[in-house]
Amino acid sequence: MERKTLLTDCPDAQGLIATITNICYKHQLNIIHNREYVDHATGQFYMRTELEGIFNDHTLLLDLDHALPPGSQRQLVSSRRKRVVIMVTKESHCLGDILMKAYDGSLDIEIAAVVGNYDKLQPLTERFDIPFHFVSHEGLSRDEHEQAMIKAIQGHQPDYIILAKYMRVLTPDFVAQYPHRIINIHHSFLPAFIGARPYHQAFERGVKIIGATAHFVTNDLDEGPIIGQDVIHVDHSFSAQDMAKAGRDVEKSVLSQAIARVIDDRVFVHGNKTVIL
Amino acid sequence: MERKTLLTDCPDAQGLIATITNICYKHQLNIIHNREYVDHATGQFYMRTELEGIFNDHTLLLDLDHALPPGSQRQLVSSRRKRVVIMVTKESHCLGDILMKAYDGSLDIEIAAVVGNYDKLQPLTERFDIPFHFVSHEGLSRDEHEQAMIKAIQGHQPDYIILAKYMRVLTPDFVAQYPHRIINIHHSFLPAFIGARPYHQAFERGVKIIGATAHFVTNDLDEGPIIGQDVIHVDHSFSAQDMAKAGRDVEKSVLSQAIARVIDDRVFVHGNKTVIL
Amino acid sequence: MERKTLLTDCPDAQGLIATITNICYKHQLNIIHNREYVDHATGQFYMRTELEGIFNDHTLLLDLDHALPPGSQRQLVSSRRKRVVIMVTKESHCLGDILMKAYDGSLDIEIAAVVGNYDKLQPLTERFDIPFHFVSHEGLSRDEHEQAMIKAIQGHQPDYIILAKYMRVLTPDFVAQYPHRIINIHHSFLPAFIGARPYHQAFERGVKIIGATAHFVTNDLDEGPIIGQDVIHVDHSFSAQDMAKAGRDVEKSVLSQAIARVIDDRVFVHGNKTVIL
Amino acid sequence: MERKTLLTDCPDAQGLIATITNICYKHQLNIIHNREYVDHATGQFYMRTELEGIFNDHTLLLDLDHALPPGSQRQLVSSRRKRVVIMVTKESHCLGDILMKAYDGSLDIEIAAVVGNYDKLQPLTERFDIPFHFVSHEGLSRDEHEQAMIKAIQGHQPDYIILAKYMRVLTPDFVAQYPHRIINIHHSFLPAFIGARPYHQAFERGVKIIGATAHFVTNDLDEGPIIGQDVIHVDHSFSAQDMAKAGRDVEKSVLSQAIARVIDDRVFVHGNKTVIL
Repeated sequence: MERKTLLTDCPDAQGLIATITNICYKHQLNIIHNREYVDHATGQFYMRTELEGIFNDHTLLLDLDHALPPGSQRQLVSSRRKRVVIMVTKESHCLGDILMKAYDGSLDIEIAAVVGNYDKLQPLTERFDIPFHFVSHEGLSRDEHEQAMIKAIQGHQPDYIILAKYMRVLTPDFVAQYPHRIINIHHSFLPAFIGARPYHQAFERGVKIIGATAHFVTNDLDEGPIIGQDVIHVDHSFSAQDMAKAGRDVEKSVLSQAIARVIDDRVFVHGNKTVIL
Repeated sequence: MERKTLLTDCPDAQGLIATITNICYKHQLNIIHNREYVDHATGQFYMRTELEGIFNDHTLLLDLDHALPPGSQRQLVSSRRKRVVIMVTKESHCLGDILMKAYDGSLDIEIAAVVGNYDKLQPLTERFDIPFHFVSHEGLSRDEHEQAMIKAIQGHQPDYIILAKYMRVLTPDFVAQYPHRIINIHHSFLPAFIGARPYHQAFERGVKIIGATAHFVTNDLDEGPIIGQDVIHVDHSFSAQDMAKAGRDVEKSVLSQAIARVIDDRVFVHGNKTVIL
Repeated sequence: MERKTLLTDCPDAQGLIATITNICYKHQLNIIHNREYVDHATGQFYMRTELEGIFNDHTLLLDLDHALPPGSQRQLVSSRRKRVVIMVTKESHCLGDILMKAYDGSLDIEIAAVVGNYDKLQPLTERFDIPFHFVSHEGLSRDEHEQAMIKAIQGHQPDYIILAKYMRVLTPDFVAQYPHRIINIHHSFLPAFIGARPYHQAFERGVKIIGATAHFVTNDLDEGPIIGQDVIHVDHSFSAQDMAKAGRDVEKSVLSQAIARVIDDRVFVHGNKTVIL
Repeated sequence: MERKTLLTDCPDAQGLIATITNICYKHQLNIIHNREYVDHATGQFYMRTELEGIFNDHTLLLDLDHALPPGSQRQLVSSRRKRVVIMVTKESHCLGDILMKAYDGSLDIEIAAVVGNYDKLQPLTERFDIPFHFVSHEGLSRDEHEQAMIKAIQGHQPDYIILAKYMRVLTPDFVAQYPHRIINIHHSFLPAFIGARPYHQAFERGVKIIGATAHFVTNDLDEGPIIGQDVIHVDHSFSAQDMAKAGRDVEKSVLSQAIARVIDDRVFVHGNKTVIL
């Protein structure tokens, strides 16, 4: 008995749930959890079905392909632990939270490596027996640095790359290699305070909440599909530095929650939005 | 084209989703929204299916009865507006919120009447052209008073009775007449501070949060199935009166949300718990 | 024995708390509550002191003027109920919440009148025996309409004007007449989604939170000093209309809280920010 | 120039703020932050004053003693980093969060040692170069075990002891040695679910929120003065194990916040309540 997750993303049509669950039933697969969603505005159907049984992947997918409408995407995902590479700069709180949650099993991931453009977080990473690649950007052009980063990452064959407060913008080349597989945490409630120094922007504006946004990285800075967001309340007594310090907890919890959803194969991307089942 | 909601509550079995959605498909009913849940601990299956099409209720239910396992409950609910009677004592905030939300369509209910053991809220009720029945408990035994209340309520044939800060305990007789159809708001995060004067209890204990709980009324005081709960933060500067005042907003929002879920036929009751789809 | 609130807003200097509390002490005034805040970045000192006793306003303020540094502002505010005029368009939820809270004493305000550019909310307003002025903008130039609005408002001599989803932009002339006395509720977490149709903007962006911001109105649209903000969580299943409906509760609670703070003389404005003591 | 914090806890009297701030002023101490609170119910006055300047502790305290009413407590606390000992059993999330926050400076504490009745968390602790004392309770009476624990702790002379999911009840003897200096995290929103297995109790009751409470330890189990509380929402799909897993984040954030308040000398204890300035 195995567990796999069937992900269906297709144009809406009558009887889709019946069609898909019938096929699972004929394959004697038990449905453990099921969620589906129809976006009536775009006419798109999404379904995530956790199955248990003895799988014949090939015939199951063939049966689905025969039954689903043209233009359908379906994927049968085994429940193996996902491999991630974490990219960092100097701030430790997001990295630390992920390291700890991977360590105690709260996040079911294998951290293949941490890659940093500074070496400040090397000791912390190595305390958890995880390799740290220090790839300084000093003296390198932007492209040269990124090539060096990619080289450090590629060998680890990550399922996902996590930008845990990595403070440099990635080039389209980099992003293209990992479509919808790079997760960033931005330290504001997007779309407010796009770009640099969001806490300073927040301080200048005199807001009463600050927040964090986890999103997939695309070529448009801070514009990728949002996976999760949250805020905390602040008041007039918070300097920009106080906001940054207070924001650490919301940043790390939003990022960890987003990772949990993604590695659980719960996040579909459609255009610039996510559907999370 | 009509819309109805099919509610299924039955022992879990293989292929239930396929079975039910197949039947809907054969009846040419379109599934607008669907959610199901299997409680693996109790082996119970719940499904809520919003359907659109031309209904033949009789044959649809017959088909379901043939296909579902023994002991199944299924119900086809038309989407007509639910009728409620609201019971009150003296506090206006929950009643006021419901009156306003019914008035502007935020809550899709018909308030048949408000019944109070004081007449304090009569003017407010009548501002919204809703009949108010004043049934004083003075000079009456508990049973006599309740009989009078029931008499005032019954004629309105409510789908649900809402206790919007009705400060008297109902007898088993009363409760038995409206099983899982009486919704109460208790002004604490149950099971803390059961019984009288929860804000005073909260003040005495020095808690840093206060809350509210909406639940179906059973014969065990404050022990019925919980529909919704929420809390707000307080600090040392709150007297019991301050807590009561601050708690008004969370009481009314928790109650309104619970009503919205119930009238939307999203709440299943199993034992002393709710499943909300 | 009376209660008044002393508001001090002055350049920071050593011994200010001692100076001010000494003067109160010499006047035999008892301090019921006191909060102060020093903004070390701007070097500004704020203090809000609730006093009880027998007041000689003139000599108290003279004593303060002698003792405080040049450029100080101080104000002794009696605790009388504030008068407000509410401006509305068509949506009832914020108006309804304020009407209800004024009715039951949760908000200690006197609603002098409601002024609308549509008459849709006239019946609701009049249910609470409050005058409603319908000032249609049809056939009028922007300036003519605003003159008519001002005329309807002025006679009521409001302490504050509350824009309870008033969907037109005020001119600088209007704003200049009520500096820091016009409170608006904007249906987004500013500075995100400035301008028109924020829920549609939020829907397009695929955000996972929506929110509301209460702020003083200045001449820069949606840029005035923020008094309060809050958010709620949404997911992919929310259409722009669903967001608008779900947002009602957070809009009305943020607005009511902002009003409560302002009428309690707790909100200082400095530049484009508020200090709330 | 030094920074110290003056903590005053005394019977309320007229002019106390003036008295205390005058004395600070005469000592040429600058007030950086000040908060005070009068509990009008108990007639107790609390004040926390952060001071900057050149301190003559002896004469400052003498001056205060002359000026304050009989029965006053005052304390001048230097801003040195507090030393803590952490007691643990097997769960790592609270310990991990504290280790990480001490590591990156989010919590300004020195962790002198971790003491566990199991050795499971020894490797994690030692990754941070902090000594771990494994004091098994096996084969020991309760008193013998506690004596061994105390022995392991005492040498470190902690300012505070943090029970980071230490799953044994302390004896009155132990508690008496560290009055208001032992901080516990209880995994429920107290006073609900006192005692063992609160998540199982929560699951049985069918609650829609779960929470955590940080409190000082007294001899009454789970009855000590509450420092902080928070909750998260759950639904019918959460097993007791799911609740326990989801609860980790709120447990660790509530505990860390409580520690931050305590080490910042912001928490006064009066009877069974805290005043947090």
